[in-house]
Amino acid sequence: MSEPAPVHPDAAVEARKQAARAWFEALRDRLCAAFEALEDRLDHPRTAHLAPGRFERRPWRRPGGGGGVMGLMREGRVFEKVGVNVSTVWGRFEPDFAGRVRGAGEDPRFWASGISLVAHPRNPHVPPAHLNTRHIVTTEAWFGGGADLNPIVPDDAETAAFHARLAEACQVWGPEAYPRFKAWADDYFYIPHRGEARGVGGIFYDELVADPERGFAFTRAVGEAFLEVYPRLVAAKMERPWSEEERAHQLMRRGRYVEFNLVYDRGTRFGLETGGNPDAVLMSLPPLVAWP
Amino acid sequence: MSEPAPVHPDAAVEARKQAARAWFEALRDRLCAAFEALEDRLDHPRTAHLAPGRFERRPWRRPGGGGGVMGLMREGRVFEKVGVNVSTVWGRFEPDFAGRVRGAGEDPRFWASGISLVAHPRNPHVPPAHLNTRHIVTTEAWFGGGADLNPIVPDDAETAAFHARLAEACQVWGPEAYPRFKAWADDYFYIPHRGEARGVGGIFYDELVADPERGFAFTRAVGEAFLEVYPRLVAAKMERPWSEEERAHQLMRRGRYVEFNLVYDRGTRFGLETGGNPDAVLMSLPPLVAWP
Repeated sequence: MSEPAPVHPDAAVEARKQAARAWFEALRDRLCAAFEALEDRLDHPRTAHLAPGRFERRPWRRPGGGGGVMGLMREGRVFEKVGVNVSTVWGRFEPDFAGRVRGAGEDPRFWASGISLVAHPRNPHVPPAHLNTRHIVTTEAWFGGGADLNPIVPDDAETAAFHARLAEACQVWGPEAYPRFKAWADDYFYIPHRGEARGVGGIFYDELVADPERGFAFTRAVGEAFLEVYPRLVAAKMERPWSEEERAHQLMRRGRYVEFNLVYDRGTRFGLETGGNPDAVLMSLPPLVAWP
Repeated sequence: MSEPAPVHPDAAVEARKQAARAWFEALRDRLCAAFEALEDRLDHPRTAHLAPGRFERRPWRRPGGGGGVMGLMREGRVFEKVGVNVSTVWGRFEPDFAGRVRGAGEDPRFWASGISLVAHPRNPHVPPAHLNTRHIVTTEAWFGGGADLNPIVPDDAETAAFHARLAEACQVWGPEAYPRFKAWADDYFYIPHRGEARGVGGIFYDELVADPERGFAFTRAVGEAFLEVYPRLVAAKMERPWSEEERAHQLMRRGRYVEFNLVYDRGTRFGLETGGNPDAVLMSLPPLVAWP
């Protein structure tokens, strides 16, 4: 580590930083275990020749301070590719960037920790999904994040189950949280040049500065919700048969996901423009994609 | 057509517009014929089950004026996908855009005609290639364009042959043209987040306003050069065998092409941001791509 992470003068902020980091890392372990359990459990004629998928973990250092661990499962039975990154980084924002980050205009020092996950199942009936939550500390402190479902073949009952579980988690923030954060996701996860949503939505939230302790509790609830609902939705459909036509449609729909991420996604573009590790930034891209 | 193309007060400019349009359309026909001839000629055990590829043409109209024809060959023997677009469009630039276009700051009317081609061969030994040339008329008139080669497996002799033929075409513009336009391509066809070139380069040029008649002659020479050299390079390697490892490497390298086009390519981003037909704008994307 190039320098120790700055210690915030407020002990409560400092304690929450360490607790958030520990939470993200523990959530990563639990998500990886849940996905590997699905890999062990699947019995499908199309993937019987494959070994159950396992995560490989690759640590990386950020030159300016901190680092993370990329977790990647490839060529599993259930999951064709899953990327799970955890990172905790700190340093100083560049002057032109600091002015655009909350609380960093006067003092460019920052600390940030988070988890991001993107899962691309092999079976076209099983929906891809994305989860990303983070804690950011400048002169202010807040949580942000989001989760969304990107089915190849949308299914109303599945969409409703995903949203219901996220709505339950949103109660931790407050009664107005779900409609607000769902609308935010609908606005964010949209592909203007296609005139279509990238999936069936979920929630998106950021800069919950008013009450970071409650923001942390809410972020934990989002993590718990995703950990419970997504493996359940995967298990419900992972044994279905699929056709070559369905596979072709899946590869085409994955193209929309790539278009969104490379053209619009703020995190991806920020990572590429600021010299992030391209393999980590682009770990979310699907394993195989078609533009027929 | 929503309104007739504006007629330029200078008859020589008007005559050149019509000649340029006719040239681009004739070049499209000759390129398609050359590619279809390669499809007929190939004898390769891996693609013997496929019919020789043929172009389908789909005309489209631009709401603001003009339109074009998308030409697409899919699932050929030699070419897994080739897109060839010709278009001739006119109208008025939006005020915020007009200020950024040469000669349109005072009068936002424009006329533009061009051809763009991207070829993605099936055989990993055969290099993908790109050609794009255009004539633009505002209160000024100029030609611009470029061509580059994107081999999966770079080959010094092949690269030298491609560059030599373009260098010969550059003589029509002048003795300093090839080094200048080669350097411009090296600068443009670069992927900053990967720290690597997208291919082995070629030429790139724009705003040749000093002498549009010579710009047209040069643009014709670039088209003739591409028409002669690229089919020759394809024919030289299209009968080679390839391995699954080479195919996997090809799909991964195609990912770099997608990253360049969606993140950096000005024409692609302009097309997506200004509400162009996304299928035409993204016709350059490879048919099948991997991010393993």
